[in-house]
Amino acid sequence: MTNKPTPAYAVRLLVRLWHKPGTLGRLATTIGEAGGNITRMEGFVVRGDSVTREIVVDASSEQHIQEIIDAVNKVEGIDVIESSDMTFHVHEGGKLDTVSRRPLTDAIDLSMAYTPGVARVSRALAEDESLAFAYTIRQNTVAIISDGSAVLGLGDIGPIGALPVMEGKAVLFNEFAGVNAFPICVDVNSIEELIAVAKAVAPTFGGINLEDIAAPGAFEVEERLRDELDIPVFHDDQHGTAIVTLAALLNAAKVVGKPFESLRVVMVGAGAAGVAVAKILTNAGIEDIVVCDRNGAIHGGRTDLTSGKQWLADNTNPRAVSGSLAEAMVGSNVFIGVSGPGVAGRAEVETMADTPIVFAMANPDPEIRPEDVDDIVAVMATGRSDYPNQINNVLAFPGVFRGAFDAGAHTITEGMKVAAALAIAEAVQEPTADYIVPNPFNKDIAPAVAAAVAKAAVKDGVVRI
Amino acid sequence: MTNKPTPAYAVRLLVRLWHKPGTLGRLATTIGEAGGNITRMEGFVVRGDSVTREIVVDASSEQHIQEIIDAVNKVEGIDVIESSDMTFHVHEGGKLDTVSRRPLTDAIDLSMAYTPGVARVSRALAEDESLAFAYTIRQNTVAIISDGSAVLGLGDIGPIGALPVMEGKAVLFNEFAGVNAFPICVDVNSIEELIAVAKAVAPTFGGINLEDIAAPGAFEVEERLRDELDIPVFHDDQHGTAIVTLAALLNAAKVVGKPFESLRVVMVGAGAAGVAVAKILTNAGIEDIVVCDRNGAIHGGRTDLTSGKQWLADNTNPRAVSGSLAEAMVGSNVFIGVSGPGVAGRAEVETMADTPIVFAMANPDPEIRPEDVDDIVAVMATGRSDYPNQINNVLAFPGVFRGAFDAGAHTITEGMKVAAALAIAEAVQEPTADYIVPNPFNKDIAPAVAAAVAKAAVKDGVVRI
Repeated sequence: MTNKPTPAYAVRLLVRLWHKPGTLGRLATTIGEAGGNITRMEGFVVRGDSVTREIVVDASSEQHIQEIIDAVNKVEGIDVIESSDMTFHVHEGGKLDTVSRRPLTDAIDLSMAYTPGVARVSRALAEDESLAFAYTIRQNTVAIISDGSAVLGLGDIGPIGALPVMEGKAVLFNEFAGVNAFPICVDVNSIEELIAVAKAVAPTFGGINLEDIAAPGAFEVEERLRDELDIPVFHDDQHGTAIVTLAALLNAAKVVGKPFESLRVVMVGAGAAGVAVAKILTNAGIEDIVVCDRNGAIHGGRTDLTSGKQWLADNTNPRAVSGSLAEAMVGSNVFIGVSGPGVAGRAEVETMADTPIVFAMANPDPEIRPEDVDDIVAVMATGRSDYPNQINNVLAFPGVFRGAFDAGAHTITEGMKVAAALAIAEAVQEPTADYIVPNPFNKDIAPAVAAAVAKAAVKDGVVRI
Repeated sequence: MTNKPTPAYAVRLLVRLWHKPGTLGRLATTIGEAGGNITRMEGFVVRGDSVTREIVVDASSEQHIQEIIDAVNKVEGIDVIESSDMTFHVHEGGKLDTVSRRPLTDAIDLSMAYTPGVARVSRALAEDESLAFAYTIRQNTVAIISDGSAVLGLGDIGPIGALPVMEGKAVLFNEFAGVNAFPICVDVNSIEELIAVAKAVAPTFGGINLEDIAAPGAFEVEERLRDELDIPVFHDDQHGTAIVTLAALLNAAKVVGKPFESLRVVMVGAGAAGVAVAKILTNAGIEDIVVCDRNGAIHGGRTDLTSGKQWLADNTNPRAVSGSLAEAMVGSNVFIGVSGPGVAGRAEVETMADTPIVFAMANPDPEIRPEDVDDIVAVMATGRSDYPNQINNVLAFPGVFRGAFDAGAHTITEGMKVAAALAIAEAVQEPTADYIVPNPFNKDIAPAVAAAVAKAAVKDGVVRI
């Protein structure tokens, strides 16, 4: 699974070869036999008997990069004279620039954009703070706030480790929806401190995107900030995932020809994402959801529940199912995994009702490997880009904030989230088993999501006048 | 003084005129007689008997804008059909964009800049945090932190009122020195909270520029952050002002032909800027400085001193001068005002030694009006752009951070500040009475300052390995 070559492990090699026919062929063959994918080959310089070439090779791990280099070096007449890791290269110097929106060419520009002119704008804003949404970056800027406590699959790696992820996210906001975003990676010792810092910096921003904060603290951070601030607050790990999952499930239901509301759903993982997915599916009309954690199905009779899980006990599992995940899966229509690899497998999928839908979204290693079940599932989705049906949050968050900003919304409602999901689902005109969500690079998605979200904001009455 | 037309009060007028010879002349005459300056006149559209023109007029106040419009409307055959305030127009939607440093065009880019590739970079940074200075925006990004407690001459207008100023500052960082900067306007209730928030957000940034924070809290914020963080911290109101003042005074000494170290300096204002100016002048070799506050000269015998003023009592005023500002000024060579208008005037300047140097830097209204003393001073400087010798911090801060970043400095030393001042002073090849500092729009200054600062950082041994 993790042995596929990927651009995440691309390496640029500078290779010196004998200038003789057949040498390049031997190089390509060697790399192929070592499991590398040549994705680019650029220019060459002939010097005497040798020729120098630059090639880019996708590998599957850092060790694999080294194996490829070693294999190449063993070939007579070929030497790797330089290698550089492409992923690290892309991150050099950071991924974000902050630039002026307008040219600043002379003293006249300066005296309007800065002193003395700016004093007039500042005074006006001090008198009427709502003008900040017209005359400052608040109009269009999201803070991407993380304490680095649950970054990707890496766990609690701290704010500095989290920074490259948040920068990447900021880039996506801008590229897909023209939303400006800036990472705020915070060094704090408690959820209470995190909330205090987010509230303190809020005057600069028009919205807050919470990211990679460990559960259950993440719930409290979001809830408190939603209550105490008058700008949209969105925990992407919860709601971004929830929106795209709902979109995918709407289309998967079409593919298997079953009414969406009738689907029996079993989920595993009751962290931030799990609770949000269960919530949005409930809001979208699904009645029979059983969520499992490490201790099995979550039901009203359990006494070991955190607040998020208590919500699940109160609002899902109408048949009061108890017992293990495997038991819960028997006869179900949909499996949704937001936990980790190995919690279920082919044996459990075989006990599901006919035409099973499996969303195994743990990253990078899905709960259930697509290769293990592809002959018995009707629709399969993962969080990975190298399989069909990638549940990718980038389909949601840029358009959600674009829509909220366009409408002047002061919060993000459940209605806005469901509207976003419907817009994503509708962007797929004819869903098939391996096409239930749009390509994440489809630049039409964010505008469509934004329009739907803005409309829902107006409908829900949460826009500033 | 405040009645001069300025671009800070520029208005764009859409005017409809009779399409007859002479009408445009009457319009221009009317605006001139009303005290407005026409700075631009763009295109025109003829419709039947009338022609529509767009003109930009500098006025001196919002009321003055209205007076000009009223005067124009009174002329037969001329109507203002639309007017828009240019300064507010420049601020519409904010002044800053956050954009990707590199194109993000396909799934390969995405898988390197974001997941899954970014996980490798994050893991590397979590293991060795110093790599953040190579692979994240920390390398080149300054936080411009303000609580809005002392914004320009406007006082405590809060974080939202401060935001347009900090955005403008961010733009200047980028335009003059290629330094990325982002405003962090914070809503806090105490200096302790401000320090906590600045420390919490520090992992995202390579440096902190403190701005418009009221004294004496500003001293403590800077001191604590300098002690507790390992990135450069710079309170621009103190050190930016100090650097440019030192540069200006070095050249003013040349103009009057007196040895710099021998100058007798009297200052008024012992706030953030005052203490920093006194400190840098002391570090640069001046021995005789008397700083006055509301209660007169600051000396060791006073018992009403805050910590900043205590530093002044301990380190300046070697002749133990006591009494009023007016008394202190008798026989002095240099007057430096960093307080407010009206504290001294022509009578006091007349008591100074021959060839007096007067830096009246309060904004927008200087301590001493240039018009009142221009026949008796040798060199006069202010904080304003509409008089010669503007003491403008933009000459210092972009280059200071550029130099600190280029050198990989983890702090900003006194030596780096003095080096910055020398570089600014040296950029003026032949100082004259009305040319002691470079034009703030001279784009050669920041690189020169940066080079000097980086060199001083190495010399002072404060660079990361």
